[in-house]
Amino acid sequence: MINKVGRDIPDSILKKYKTTGYQGMNYRDYKNYKKDAPVSSPVTDPTRKKLCSSLREALEKCSLKDGMYFGFHHHFRDGDYIVAMVMEEVAKMGIKDITICASSLGTAQDSLEHLIEDGTIAGIQSSGVRGKIGEAISKGKFKNPAIIRSHGGRVRAIEEGEIHLDVAFIGAPTSDEYGNARATGGKSDCGVLSYSMVDAKYADKVVVITDCLVPFPNVPASISMVDVDFVCTVPAIGNPAKIVSNVVRVTKDPRELMMAQYCTQIIAKSPYFKDGFSFQTGGGGAALAVTGLLKPYMVEKGIKMSFAIGGIMAAMCNLMDDGLVGKIVDAQCFDTYAIEHIKKNPNHIEISTSEYANPLNKGAYVNKLDFVILGALEVDVNFNVNVVTGSDGIVRGAPGGHPDTAAGSKCSIIVAPLIRSRIPTIVDSVLTVTTPGEAVDVVVTDYGIAINPGRKDLIEVYKDSNLPICTIEELRDKAYSMAGKPDSVEFDEKIVALVQSRDGTILDVIRKIKD
Amino acid sequence: MINKVGRDIPDSILKKYKTTGYQGMNYRDYKNYKKDAPVSSPVTDPTRKKLCSSLREALEKCSLKDGMYFGFHHHFRDGDYIVAMVMEEVAKMGIKDITICASSLGTAQDSLEHLIEDGTIAGIQSSGVRGKIGEAISKGKFKNPAIIRSHGGRVRAIEEGEIHLDVAFIGAPTSDEYGNARATGGKSDCGVLSYSMVDAKYADKVVVITDCLVPFPNVPASISMVDVDFVCTVPAIGNPAKIVSNVVRVTKDPRELMMAQYCTQIIAKSPYFKDGFSFQTGGGGAALAVTGLLKPYMVEKGIKMSFAIGGIMAAMCNLMDDGLVGKIVDAQCFDTYAIEHIKKNPNHIEISTSEYANPLNKGAYVNKLDFVILGALEVDVNFNVNVVTGSDGIVRGAPGGHPDTAAGSKCSIIVAPLIRSRIPTIVDSVLTVTTPGEAVDVVVTDYGIAINPGRKDLIEVYKDSNLPICTIEELRDKAYSMAGKPDSVEFDEKIVALVQSRDGTILDVIRKIKD
Repeated sequence: MINKVGRDIPDSILKKYKTTGYQGMNYRDYKNYKKDAPVSSPVTDPTRKKLCSSLREALEKCSLKDGMYFGFHHHFRDGDYIVAMVMEEVAKMGIKDITICASSLGTAQDSLEHLIEDGTIAGIQSSGVRGKIGEAISKGKFKNPAIIRSHGGRVRAIEEGEIHLDVAFIGAPTSDEYGNARATGGKSDCGVLSYSMVDAKYADKVVVITDCLVPFPNVPASISMVDVDFVCTVPAIGNPAKIVSNVVRVTKDPRELMMAQYCTQIIAKSPYFKDGFSFQTGGGGAALAVTGLLKPYMVEKGIKMSFAIGGIMAAMCNLMDDGLVGKIVDAQCFDTYAIEHIKKNPNHIEISTSEYANPLNKGAYVNKLDFVILGALEVDVNFNVNVVTGSDGIVRGAPGGHPDTAAGSKCSIIVAPLIRSRIPTIVDSVLTVTTPGEAVDVVVTDYGIAINPGRKDLIEVYKDSNLPICTIEELRDKAYSMAGKPDSVEFDEKIVALVQSRDGTILDVIRKIKD
Repeated sequence: MINKVGRDIPDSILKKYKTTGYQGMNYRDYKNYKKDAPVSSPVTDPTRKKLCSSLREALEKCSLKDGMYFGFHHHFRDGDYIVAMVMEEVAKMGIKDITICASSLGTAQDSLEHLIEDGTIAGIQSSGVRGKIGEAISKGKFKNPAIIRSHGGRVRAIEEGEIHLDVAFIGAPTSDEYGNARATGGKSDCGVLSYSMVDAKYADKVVVITDCLVPFPNVPASISMVDVDFVCTVPAIGNPAKIVSNVVRVTKDPRELMMAQYCTQIIAKSPYFKDGFSFQTGGGGAALAVTGLLKPYMVEKGIKMSFAIGGIMAAMCNLMDDGLVGKIVDAQCFDTYAIEHIKKNPNHIEISTSEYANPLNKGAYVNKLDFVILGALEVDVNFNVNVVTGSDGIVRGAPGGHPDTAAGSKCSIIVAPLIRSRIPTIVDSVLTVTTPGEAVDVVVTDYGIAINPGRKDLIEVYKDSNLPICTIEELRDKAYSMAGKPDSVEFDEKIVALVQSRDGTILDVIRKIKD
């Protein structure tokens, strides 16, 4: 079928995965469904112990079988040791055909390439993949196509049983011997354990792996003992120096600063910029700069932010410390400053990723978001965004919360340079649709700003502003005139990945790159 | 069948309720089961509103039908307005045959008697019942037998789908318009919302009723918006003056003080009284006094409590403020002092009732409990305890966490006067078994202390102490010699209530009292 973003999704795929092509943002709104649930081993007997002498013992107690689905989280980001540690041990046990369902994967998992070759790992379900695993997907090395989901989409998939996790592995900075786990208090603090909360509630078996065992009870617990089967200690769960990969940098790039100024103007002139507004920004120079640039506008207007979400960094913490943010609801810490800030500030609060972005719970934070600033690898004239495949067609990015926040927010702003490494960013048609155009309101580039024609209200707001408003086609033409129309990437027929919409329908497929 | 506490449970009952008679404390330990799950209405569309203009509107949006199961909590105790308010409105709508599944009921629900008569309320499932509803049960006025469960047993029943709640009504001291609810911040603070947490997660529809609407987001939320369908405001959710019914009183009764001293001695001389021990005490003069009496023993020995649980009162908060308690994990505040204390003290933490006491999760706090001090209406020579039926055979009490803490703790101590209102407390056979004897370790009375013969280790510990240790039969004989053997209560054949063990098997049945 041709789905609502114009992509041809093979019927064989729709049939195999029991879904349909993307039908629009609110396709499943208020359509009832029964949630999934785990098969649980109750611990009634108080003398039963959970603490294992080794990871191997915990794995053996989980009665692993070929073909199982494992849950992992990515709070340790590029410093993560857990995925590799578990999968190497699983390989030693001779278990095959494991599907890794991670909240995200990256260069920390580069070492796992040989476990794809030897059949230990059969498939990947993740919010996109960077590094060698991404290349392996695009080269067709996996038995099963990868499934790429947004952060909210992963929670949705687990909560409705599209994924049923056999075992969840939760790396925890601290835990007690009964499994109460926290994101702080050890040598590898990561601020929050938001991504793993759904795993703990829905996986049949839950293993907490820590490098800092603390006395019972380790509370308030991010992961509760009532959901944990086994606990084991290891020398290190991650490399603290790499846990924070998006280093905070105050950009001095004039092009980034100009785009940040445009974004700030868009926000400040919008009808949503009033007391109690809410805001998320991702990483990256331009987006990050906006948080700081907003401050004088807020002070001048005498308004405060009610809440901020997203990957939290120092800039937002500082804004809170200046009294300009009511609450930070945190599903991911992006820097050490944020990790320290959440320990001390009672208004900086850990939330679950379901609360953050799940499209099929009874209402997530993204639904309450006024503004979000997001990046893009490509944007097309229908405002569709690609954040997953590079210009070479290889999987090297992750949607993360991009489709969730774009869909939920009142004003989603994509910021990207018009040309990146001599390749146009604004194009006729993106290589891969990862966020549908109907969720994108404004595109800010260094050569002009385009507003989605569907948002006539916003077009009206900015029409007499001094902002360089133009059409998306004008941006594309400008890009093509400067860098030429990009060559098309050559693919084989074989489908190596599915890009799911946050509601489980299929937005797009990714094919094997030609050798 | 004759169950493990010697009670004859009619096969017709076991068949109808698809269960068996009580088989022992760890009968279901580590036997896998699939958890239940709600049918959920997802809110993907950010423009969808949850705030209703009235309770009536919220009820209408829940599509109520005859025969539904409603969840309620009892954090407002004798001051609760929610159950009556909802049920009166339901009656006006002409809905019949509702089963009320409350965490507990009491005199606050006395006004509902007429809704039993008119068929609005068909059944009660609760941790026992005080007041007129209890009398109505014992007089056989309900269509269906009441089911009496412990606090942990109620969570277990909901989590495994023995009860499937159609609608949960959660009275909340504060809420925002999206359903983030907290136990504090309004005019009717109750400290924690622990009992309602399972309702929010497992009921198909969840309605938050508040008398204090606050700005979004109301965090950290005890009940999350992701589980809430509708929010409505009412003038008052409860009477703050009656929310705290167990007024803290420092007992001056010499008999109570003597029993408290015995309990304290039992604890202080036990092998579990060491650094990091854990402790729960219920309300009541003798039990409450123990918290204070323990202090000098702790100071002298230089030890601290790792955690305290239970209905939390000022005495325990004071012990924490004195530096003698690591954490208070709180599922119920019993007094205003505790309600204020949890707002200010980061080591005084709200937990769910599943975390507190559910026997079929992966390990509850009661499993980690060293000591618990509990009351009793009757104890028999097999150490079985009755806390539900009075000497007249009428339902007038609640097991609450009694069977949970008795089963989980290393040393459960029952404290009760030998004679109460000229009626023996220690008897041949309790009227109703509500906590099985195998979970009871020590019985402290004003005339002596009996240790369960199954606890040879404890008998050994206290044999050379100066405590008045005797056998339970000696206590019974003493009681009978002083007050005479109690007359047997006369019942009809009709079964009006089932007393469930915490794991769902049947401990006992309660029959209709003779007119």
